Amino acid sequence: MTAPTTSRSTLSPTELQHLDAYWRAANYLSVGQIYLLANPLLREPLTLKHVKPRLLGHWGTTPGLNFIYVHLNRLIKEHDLSVLYVAGPGHGAPGVVANVYLEGSYSELYPDIGLGEDGLRKLFRQFSFPGGIPSHAAPQTPGSIHEGGELGFSLTHAYGAAFDHPELLVACVIGDGEAETGPLAASWHGNKFLNARTDGAVLPILHLNGYKIANPTVLARLSHAELDTLLRGYGHTPYYVEGDEPVLMHQQMARTLEQVYADIAAIQRRARVDGVQERPAWPMIVLRSPKGWTGPKVVDGLPVEGTWRAHQVPLAGLSDSPEHLRQLEEWLLSYRPEELFDEAGMLRPELAALAPSGERRMGMNPVSNGGLLPRDLDLPDFRDYGLAVPQPGAVDGEATRVLGTFLKGVMERNMNIFRLFGPDETASNRLDGVYAASGKTWEEPQLSTDLHLSPDGRVMEVLSEHLCEGWLEGYTLTGRHGLFSCYEAFIHVVDSMVGQHAKWLGTSREIPWRRPVPSLNILLTSHVWRQDHNGSSHQDPGFIDLMVNKAPAVVRVYLPPDANTLLSVTDHCLRSREYVNVIVAGKQPELQWLNMADAAKHCADGLGVWAWASTDRGDTPDVVMACAGDVPTLETLAAVSLLREAFPDLKIRVVNVVDLMTLQPQIEHPHGLSDAAFDEIFTTDAPIIFAYHGYPWLIHRLTYRRAGHRNLHVHGYKGEGTTTTPFDMTVLNDLDRFHLALDVINRVPHLKEAGTDVRQQLLAKLAEHHAYVRATGDDLPDVKNWRWAED
Amino acid sequence: MTAPTTSRSTLSPTELQHLDAYWRAANYLSVGQIYLLANPLLREPLTLKHVKPRLLGHWGTTPGLNFIYVHLNRLIKEHDLSVLYVAGPGHGAPGVVANVYLEGSYSELYPDIGLGEDGLRKLFRQFSFPGGIPSHAAPQTPGSIHEGGELGFSLTHAYGAAFDHPELLVACVIGDGEAETGPLAASWHGNKFLNARTDGAVLPILHLNGYKIANPTVLARLSHAELDTLLRGYGHTPYYVEGDEPVLMHQQMARTLEQVYADIAAIQRRARVDGVQERPAWPMIVLRSPKGWTGPKVVDGLPVEGTWRAHQVPLAGLSDSPEHLRQLEEWLLSYRPEELFDEAGMLRPELAALAPSGERRMGMNPVSNGGLLPRDLDLPDFRDYGLAVPQPGAVDGEATRVLGTFLKGVMERNMNIFRLFGPDETASNRLDGVYAASGKTWEEPQLSTDLHLSPDGRVMEVLSEHLCEGWLEGYTLTGRHGLFSCYEAFIHVVDSMVGQHAKWLGTSREIPWRRPVPSLNILLTSHVWRQDHNGSSHQDPGFIDLMVNKAPAVVRVYLPPDANTLLSVTDHCLRSREYVNVIVAGKQPELQWLNMADAAKHCADGLGVWAWASTDRGDTPDVVMACAGDVPTLETLAAVSLLREAFPDLKIRVVNVVDLMTLQPQIEHPHGLSDAAFDEIFTTDAPIIFAYHGYPWLIHRLTYRRAGHRNLHVHGYKGEGTTTTPFDMTVLNDLDRFHLALDVINRVPHLKEAGTDVRQQLLAKLAEHHAYVRATGDDLPDVKNWRWAED
Ligand SMILES: Cc1ncc(C[n+]2csc(CCOP(=O)(O)OP(=O)(O)O)c2C)c(N)n1
Ligand SMILES: Cc1ncc(C[n+]2csc(CCOP(=O)(O)OP(=O)(O)O)c2C)c(N)n1
Ligand SMILES: [Mg+2]
Ligand SMILES: [Mg+2]
Repeated sequence: MTAPTTSRSTLSPTELQHLDAYWRAANYLSVGQIYLLANPLLREPLTLKHVKPRLLGHWGTTPGLNFIYVHLNRLIKEHDLSVLYVAGPGHGAPGVVANVYLEGSYSELYPDIGLGEDGLRKLFRQFSFPGGIPSHAAPQTPGSIHEGGELGFSLTHAYGAAFDHPELLVACVIGDGEAETGPLAASWHGNKFLNARTDGAVLPILHLNGYKIANPTVLARLSHAELDTLLRGYGHTPYYVEGDEPVLMHQQMARTLEQVYADIAAIQRRARVDGVQERPAWPMIVLRSPKGWTGPKVVDGLPVEGTWRAHQVPLAGLSDSPEHLRQLEEWLLSYRPEELFDEAGMLRPELAALAPSGERRMGMNPVSNGGLLPRDLDLPDFRDYGLAVPQPGAVDGEATRVLGTFLKGVMERNMNIFRLFGPDETASNRLDGVYAASGKTWEEPQLSTDLHLSPDGRVMEVLSEHLCEGWLEGYTLTGRHGLFSCYEAFIHVVDSMVGQHAKWLGTSREIPWRRPVPSLNILLTSHVWRQDHNGSSHQDPGFIDLMVNKAPAVVRVYLPPDANTLLSVTDHCLRSREYVNVIVAGKQPELQWLNMADAAKHCADGLGVWAWASTDRGDTPDVVMACAGDVPTLETLAAVSLLREAFPDLKIRVVNVVDLMTLQPQIEHPHGLSDAAFDEIFTTDAPIIFAYHGYPWLIHRLTYRRAGHRNLHVHGYKGEGTTTTPFDMTVLNDLDRFHLALDVINRVPHLKEAGTDVRQQLLAKLAEHHAYVRATGDDLPDVKNWRWAED
Repeated sequence: MTAPTTSRSTLSPTELQHLDAYWRAANYLSVGQIYLLANPLLREPLTLKHVKPRLLGHWGTTPGLNFIYVHLNRLIKEHDLSVLYVAGPGHGAPGVVANVYLEGSYSELYPDIGLGEDGLRKLFRQFSFPGGIPSHAAPQTPGSIHEGGELGFSLTHAYGAAFDHPELLVACVIGDGEAETGPLAASWHGNKFLNARTDGAVLPILHLNGYKIANPTVLARLSHAELDTLLRGYGHTPYYVEGDEPVLMHQQMARTLEQVYADIAAIQRRARVDGVQERPAWPMIVLRSPKGWTGPKVVDGLPVEGTWRAHQVPLAGLSDSPEHLRQLEEWLLSYRPEELFDEAGMLRPELAALAPSGERRMGMNPVSNGGLLPRDLDLPDFRDYGLAVPQPGAVDGEATRVLGTFLKGVMERNMNIFRLFGPDETASNRLDGVYAASGKTWEEPQLSTDLHLSPDGRVMEVLSEHLCEGWLEGYTLTGRHGLFSCYEAFIHVVDSMVGQHAKWLGTSREIPWRRPVPSLNILLTSHVWRQDHNGSSHQDPGFIDLMVNKAPAVVRVYLPPDANTLLSVTDHCLRSREYVNVIVAGKQPELQWLNMADAAKHCADGLGVWAWASTDRGDTPDVVMACAGDVPTLETLAAVSLLREAFPDLKIRVVNVVDLMTLQPQIEHPHGLSDAAFDEIFTTDAPIIFAYHGYPWLIHRLTYRRAGHRNLHVHGYKGEGTTTTPFDMTVLNDLDRFHLALDVINRVPHLKEAGTDVRQQLLAKLAEHHAYVRATGDDLPDVKNWRWAED
C-alpha cells in the first residue's frame, strides 16, 4: 500500500450517479434474493407466483453492508488495494452475495449462476431455499472468512487476518448490536497488538443502524460526545458518515474513505519508511444510517425504515395482503432496475466497470480462501528436540517445556507464517523456550523490568480466550499457521467459537473452490489433575466431550503421555489441514516413558501395547490396563508395579492411547481402529481397566460398539476437585494407582479370593495417604518418589 | 443511603496510623496463609518446620484487595452503609479471608477457627491445604458471591447484585488483566441499565497493578489521557489513586472514597428526591499500585514488588534457600505483628474497632448469602394461563407466547424480585406478553418509534449472553429470581459461566451457613429444529449434554412438548432453589396435546404413557415410541398415525418424556425413575424408537443401565443442518415421521415381511418430499397440515 495518488475528496456528478446506481443494483439484488422466485427483472407485473412461499432473511442490515461494499470497490480501484471484507452481521448475506455476484466473482465460482436474467433468477431463488445457499455469509459465500451467524467475532477475525499481511486492508463492518457482545467489546484492543510495519491495516466500520432485533442499541443512543470519547479511548481516530440522503451520504463516504486511506498510508509510511515505532491512532468509521435504508417507510401504518421493524422481512404475509405485494413491487421498482440491467439482464457496462477486477475483487481476494496460499510450515525435525529417555520411567521431564524448544525451532524457520497465542499463560504453561526465537507482541511502552516484549514479537498474549481463538481463526483462515495454548478448564470460554469454526471447516470441505486451510491447533495444559495453585474452578476436562459430540469428523484429540510423544503429536498437527486438533498435555515434571523412536511409532499408531510394561509376555492377558493422558498413564504404571509385586504370575497387558479417535469404529471415524485390531489389542473377554484423563463416559461412548465393551471399566474425572495435593486429586476421583489396582483385584476372577490380603493393604495405603496429606500438606514420599523399575 | 454527614476528606494522624495498622494486619494474615503451618505470630524465629511444604497461592493481587477492603470498612462505618465486596481477581482469596477473619465474620461462621493465636494457626494452615479451603474466593468464603477463578465476570455479577437493591453499594474490584476479557469488556455498559432510583450503586475499582500473570496489561500501559478517555467513554467519572507510599495512598484513598460516596449520594438524591430521570456519569476508581505491594522488593537479585514476578509466591524453594527463608521472616516482621496482635493473638481493640459490626461487616452482609433473604415468588396459578385443548392435536399454539402471558402475571406480583433477561430475543422468542406488566430497561434517550422501553423496565435486553447470564447469576445469588431466555445454539456462548455457576451451587449446598438461593432458570428456544431464518450456525442442541456431563446433581432438563406443559414446568422451576433448570421449548405454532390438568400431572410425573395416542390398549406393546421435545413429539405422533392406518393391529405404546432426568437410574439422580417403573413403561423387550430433541447419544447414556437399553434406537440431531424447511430439517436428521415409521417397520419382527409395501410407500414419500421442497421451497401440504385424529 502506498500513499494516495490523488487528493480528490468528492465525487464528480457522473461518478456519484454511477456509484449510486451500483448501490441500487446491490440493494435490488438483495431484495430479490429475499423475495423472488421468478420475474427477476420485474419485466411483468409482480404476482404471488413470483414470490417465495416462505420469506426468510434479514433486510435491515443489508443496505448498509451494500453501501460500504460499493464504496470500498471505489477505493480499491482508485488505489489498487487488496481488501478483505468482513461482514460482522453475517445475516446480511443477501448484500454480500449481491455484491460478489455484481463483480462477477460469484459466476466464476458457481458457473451455474451466470450473469444475465437466467442467472439472476437462480441467484434469487437459491437464497435461503431448500437445496440452495444459507442465509448467512457462510463458507459458500465468496470472499468471506466470517459466517457472522453467532455475533461478536468480526473484529477479532479481522485482526487475525491482518497479522503478517502487510499489504492487506481488512474492512470490518461491526453491527451496533454485535458491539454489545463480550468478544467484540474485547476486540477493540486488537489495535494494541497490530504492528504497523509488518502487519496489515484493520479498518473498523461501526454500523450504527440504531437497532439490534427489537431494541435500540447501546452505542447508537449514546450522545455523539460520549461515543466519540469511547472510540478515542479505544485508541482510534473516528470519522463519521451520518445521514440518510443517498447523495450526501455518497459524498461523505467517498471523502471519508479517502481520508481514512490517507491516514493509514501515512501511518504505514511512518512505520515502514521513517522507521518510527509507536502505536498510532488508527482511523475508523462510524456509519450512522437507517436500518432498512431505502426499504419500505411505512407498512400497515407503522414506521419501518429506520426502525427495528426493518430487521428481517419488512413486508410479510404477501398472500394475505395484496397491499404488501404492491408495496414490494413498488420497493423493487424504486431501484429502477431498467436503468441498471440491460435487456439480457447484464449489469450495464458503465456500472460493471466500477468493480475491481481479478483478485482485487473482494470476492476473489486469495486471502479469503486461505487454502489458496499453499505455504506449508518449514518444520525442523521434531526428533532433534526430544528428551533422552534411556529407559522407561528413568528420567523426569516437563512435556510442555520440551515442546517450547521445538516451537522455538518452528518459529525461527517460519517467522512470517506462524504465531503462538495464549491468555498470558505461555510462560505459566512452560512454553517459554519459544521466546528465544521471538518475543511477545507489544506495541505499548516498555519498562526496564519487562522481559521478552517486542513490537514485532510473534507470541500473542492477551487475557482473552476469545481474542486468542478469534485471532488464530482469522490467521489460519487466511492461510497461516498457529497454536493456541490454554488452561484446560478455560477453553470452555470459547466453546461456541470453536464449535462454529468446526462447522465452518466441515462445510468448507464440501465446497470445491475452498482450499484446505491449516488446522486450528489447541494445546490444553495446566490440566485438571495438576491445578496446584487453584481449585475446583480450574478443573474441567469437558472440552473433549463437547468437540467429539459436535464435530467428530473435523476434530482430532490427542493425549500424549510424555514429552517425546507430545513432540511427535504436535509435529503431526502442525502439518495437518482443516482439522481442529486438541492436544492435552501436562506441564509439571513427570516421568518419561518413550524414547524418540518409540514415541514417533506409538503416535503414528495412535495407540499400542506397551510390552515393556506388560507382564503377559504376549500371552492372553488376565487383565488389560489401558490409559490415556499423562497422569492416568503414570497411575496405571504405578498400579502395574504394585500388582506385579503382589501377584508375580498375573498377566497384565498395558495399552496406551494417544489418539482418542482410534477407539471409535472405523466406520465412524477415519482414525478408528478396525474391529479385528481392536479386539486383538484389548481382547474380547479380559477385564479392561481404563484410566482416562477426562469424564469416563466418553470412553464408553467411543468404544460402545466394540466386542470387549462390556468388560470395560473406566476411571476418570468424576467432578471431585478442590485445592489439594496432586496425588490426592487422583484419589478423590478413584484414578490413583491404589484404586486402579483394587479394581484389577476385583475384576480378575482368580484374584477375588487370592487378592484379599493385598486388597486390605491397598485400602490401608489409601487411609494412610488420606491422613498423611491432611497432616503434612504433601504427598506420601513413596508415592511422590515412585519410579518405574524394569522387571 | 443518604448524603455524607461530614465533609472531612483527610485522615487524622491517629486514624491514618490505625488504618495502616489494620491494613498491615490483613497483609500479615495473607502472607501467613500462603506460607505458615505454625508459629503464626512469629514468636519464635522462623524455621522450615513452620512453613508449608507446598507453597500455593497468589500474593500479587492481595495487598491491593486488602487496601480496598480496609478503606471500604472505614466508609461503611462513617456512613452506615451496606456494601457488597466483589473481588474480581478471586485468586486474592488470602486477602478476602484475612479481612473477614479480622472483622470477626469468619469465626462466627466457622467457630473452629477462633480469634487468637490458635485460631490464627488454623486459619493459616487450612489455606490451599488438603482438607482445608480453596485458594479462591469460593462459596466457603464469607461475604463472597463471586469465585473469581475464571476471570471476567466480576462486573456483571456486581450489576446483577445491585439491581433492585436500592440501599446497596457494590464495590467491584476489577483486575487489569481481567479487564482484557470479553465478558468484562462488555460489562462496562451495565451502567446503561442501572436505574439510580430503584437500583443500588456499583462502584467499579479498576485495580491497575500493572500485570496479569507474566505480562503487563493493556490498560496499565495506556497513557493517562487515553485511559481516562476510555473510562469516560464508558460513561464513568474516574478518580485516580496512584502511588506506592502507604501514607500518601491512605490519604488519597480515604479522600477519594468520600468523594465517590458524595457523588453517588448526589446522583441518588437527584433521582430519588428530585425525581430527575437521566443516566448519570457514575464515579469509579482507578487504583494504580504495585503488584505485590509491601512484599519482597528483590529476590535472587531480580525485582519482584511492582513486577509480574509478584503474581504468585514471590519467595519459593525455601527448603533449598535459607536466604529465602530469612527474607520471608523479614517480610512477615515488616508488618510488625507485635503492634497488631496482643499476647493472646487477638487483634488489638483499637484496630478491631475499625471494622463495622453485625451485618454491616462485608463478610456478613445478608445480600452475600442470598438464601438468607427468604422471599419466594408470589406465583399466580399457571393453570389460569393455559390453552384450552379440547382434545389432543386439535388446536395450534405457540408455547412461548403462552408462557409470556404467565410471565406477565409473575412479573406483576413480584415487581421488585423478578426479572427477565435476554439478548434482545424476548419478542423474537414470543415472550412479549410480559411487556404488559413491565417494559424493557432503558436509561438512554427514547424515540417516538420506540416500544416498551422504560427506565424502570424489568426486562433486560442486551446483545450479550455473558451479561444476561452474569446479571441473572448476581441477581439470584443475592436472593432474587429470574429467567434467561436464549436462542438454543447461542447458550454455548456462556457454557463456561453456567458451568462455574453450577459448581458454585454444588459447593454451596455443602456449606451449612449458605442458604439455598433461587435456581438459575434458562429457557432455550428458537431451537435447532426451527431455525427458519437462519442456518447451520444457529443449530446446536448440545448445551444439554454439556450440563448433564458437568453437573448432573445440580442440573434439571425439561423438554415440555406443548404450551400447557411449558407452563407447568416453568412454574415448577420458578419455585425451586439451587438448581440450574434448563427448559427447551419452541416458539413456532405447533399442535397442542394436553389440557391443563393432564399437563400438570404429566409434568409432575416427568414422563408417562400417552394412552390416547397408543394402540396397545394396555397390552404388551409391539413397539414403544418414545419422544422428548416438541418437534420429536409431533413427528412421533404423525408416525403413529401413519402406522395405525397401515397396520391396524400393531400395538404401539407412546411415551412422552418431559423431565430428561427421569431416564437415569434412581441411584444416579433424585429424579430417576425406579427400574421397576422404567421397565413397566418401556418394557424390557419391545423395540423402543426414541425421537429426541438433541444429540441421540445422551439418551443412550442416560438409559445405559436400564434393562431395555439394548432395544433402544434413538433418532435425534445428527449435525445435519442448513437453511431449509422445518420438515426438511427433521428429514435430514432422520427424525421425521417417515423415518420413524420406517424404523418401526424394521424393528418390529412381524413387520419385517408384512411391512414391505408400506416401507416402499414411505420411501416414496421421502422422495416426493425431497423433490417438492426443492421445487417449491415449502413443505408438502399433507405434512404441513397434518392433524392428529382420534382413532
Ligand atoms: C451471539 C448471538 N446472540 C444472539 C443472536 C441473535 N441475533 C441475530 S441478529 C441480532 C441483532 C444484530 O444486531 P446488529 O449487530 O446491530 O446487526 P444489524 O442491526 O446490522 O442487523 C441478534 C441479537 C446472534 N446472532 N448471535
Ligand atoms: C478466563 C481466565 N483465563 C485465564 C486465567 C488464568 N489466570 C489466573 S490469574 C491471571 C492474571 C490475572 O491478572 P489480573 O486480573 O490483573 O489480576 P491480578 O494482577 O490482580 O492478579 C490469569 C491469566 C483465568 N483465571 N481465567
Ligand atoms: Mg444494528
Ligand atoms: Mg493485574
